[in-house]
Amino acid sequence: MTDKSDLSPISGEESFISEFLAPLTAGYPGAFGLTDDCATITPPPGMDLVIKTDPVRAGVHFFSDDDPADIAWKALAVNVSDLAAKGAAPLAYLASLSFPEIPDRAWMQAFAAGLAEAQSAFGCHLIGGDTDRAPGPLSIGITAIGTVPAGRMVRRGTAKPGDRIFVTGAIGDARLGLDIRRGIISDAIAAEDRQRLLCRYLRPTPRLGLRLPLLSYASAAMDISDGLIKDLERLCRASSVGARITASDVPLDPCAERFAKQSVDALSSLLTAGDDYEILCTVPADAASAFSAAAAEAQVPVSGIGDVTSAKGLIVEGADGSPMSFIRTGWDHF
Amino acid sequence: MTDKSDLSPISGEESFISEFLAPLTAGYPGAFGLTDDCATITPPPGMDLVIKTDPVRAGVHFFSDDDPADIAWKALAVNVSDLAAKGAAPLAYLASLSFPEIPDRAWMQAFAAGLAEAQSAFGCHLIGGDTDRAPGPLSIGITAIGTVPAGRMVRRGTAKPGDRIFVTGAIGDARLGLDIRRGIISDAIAAEDRQRLLCRYLRPTPRLGLRLPLLSYASAAMDISDGLIKDLERLCRASSVGARITASDVPLDPCAERFAKQSVDALSSLLTAGDDYEILCTVPADAASAFSAAAAEAQVPVSGIGDVTSAKGLIVEGADGSPMSFIRTGWDHF
Repeated sequence: MTDKSDLSPISGEESFISEFLAPLTAGYPGAFGLTDDCATITPPPGMDLVIKTDPVRAGVHFFSDDDPADIAWKALAVNVSDLAAKGAAPLAYLASLSFPEIPDRAWMQAFAAGLAEAQSAFGCHLIGGDTDRAPGPLSIGITAIGTVPAGRMVRRGTAKPGDRIFVTGAIGDARLGLDIRRGIISDAIAAEDRQRLLCRYLRPTPRLGLRLPLLSYASAAMDISDGLIKDLERLCRASSVGARITASDVPLDPCAERFAKQSVDALSSLLTAGDDYEILCTVPADAASAFSAAAAEAQVPVSGIGDVTSAKGLIVEGADGSPMSFIRTGWDHF
Repeated sequence: MTDKSDLSPISGEESFISEFLAPLTAGYPGAFGLTDDCATITPPPGMDLVIKTDPVRAGVHFFSDDDPADIAWKALAVNVSDLAAKGAAPLAYLASLSFPEIPDRAWMQAFAAGLAEAQSAFGCHLIGGDTDRAPGPLSIGITAIGTVPAGRMVRRGTAKPGDRIFVTGAIGDARLGLDIRRGIISDAIAAEDRQRLLCRYLRPTPRLGLRLPLLSYASAAMDISDGLIKDLERLCRASSVGARITASDVPLDPCAERFAKQSVDALSSLLTAGDDYEILCTVPADAASAFSAAAAEAQVPVSGIGDVTSAKGLIVEGADGSPMSFIRTGWDHF
């Protein structure tokens, strides 16, 4: 309808919604094409709804001059990542957009295209939201809703001593991707690896493939968004347990491996950096190999990194066999 | 636990959540006391969920030096008002708080007390959310969830020609309340009326009492948040109909009545100002008296203000019998 390079302003909240956002509701009747004040969800029988909201803001979670399609993808992905860690299948989401300045059409087209791409990849629809203009950074508040079999949401606080601790994918890629985004390039990162790591920062992909393995075998799970160490501490605290992990068992991308070898601080920074959006979970020891097999079948890489302990506290065994200490365990908004 | 005049800082996101927000989840098991990453909703059998998000921001929707309890009340009320207009019973809500600066304990205690008061008045629980610090105005993003009998949400786009148009309560009170809040005092407003009108601006009360009358009789409904004229135009546009209303039938508070007599512009400003949070609905003509009786029984004042027409467009008959014209029909965020 409109040209890709269209920099003309968007006139009025309602045309903004009908032009850019309403198309994202196609296929979800309860969204009423964003022409009503509320959306309805008709819950599938026998399912609980799982709900999460985690807003992202320019200058905190992304750069204001990031590609709008990447911003949109990440805003939805970080919320869907939480659903994935709970064993939930994404169903729908709401988006509250707050703009310091009304964006031009080209920006908004790219943003809507990024949302379309993400919702299609994750299997959910836009069903509602709000758009306004307010001073401050661009802010995108997504509320994501998924489904799990009734009573089966995988909890954070239900790990038991003796359980094996697993993580998906690799840890710290986004830490390196953020450096690349900032123009800080480590010698450890070859030119051909930069795009891949940058993408891990800009376009995290929720581990939705792990849904059934989690529902079938995990005793507890959460996504890793504020740093492995901090999030593992949270899981342990919620479960009234401790953990012992081995740093050398934490899965690292080959670039991250080279980076980590530079110093203990470099390794620490990978283990405590945010934006991984991998899944951390615990599995009873006797189910660990079945879980690994199910994850492999689902084509989600998982690595055992340690064990849940009855003794409180987290021990991270470093490369030299002695416990690592962390000045900062991860990201805190306060 | 802590002193009312405690100005000490709050240390860390997690203590913030556990101290001030987690108590608001008491009685809702699916909130897991905010110790998990997501909340669950077990949908009541035979019910649809109705969902709405409408964030409020300092400088746009409230003043940053408003009483924190009032800010909290209003943030929840404006979302619950949407549920009320759809015939939904509030069930739960999520709150995303974004602070430019970490508030002190006294502020946060008052804010949490305001949320507690509002959720108790509206019959819902906090079940999740997010707290962060970001530059810009204080922003409160509420996502409210209610229930309606399956398939029975009262829509915006289903008014029919010949239907009677009703509004609850009185229109324009918040317009006068906003002036009072700003220190602009009209001669039309006696000192003893100021507190009441100010309260209508600061603490709107969703018309939840109208739920069953709406479900039983209304053909269409929405809440009035951006001005009666603008919202009635929206309802008409969504329904592909028009409307004819009589300005002198629009219910006004006695102070608003005196204010409106000052000039046509004054009356216009009442009909086009935001923040009413009354319900606008249409009812088939043959059900109008039954609807009025049901509303009276529910102790919600309703007034018939006109009729839905097959001819598109909105005609507002003014005091002199000729159609009024509006330079601005209501609030637009863009």
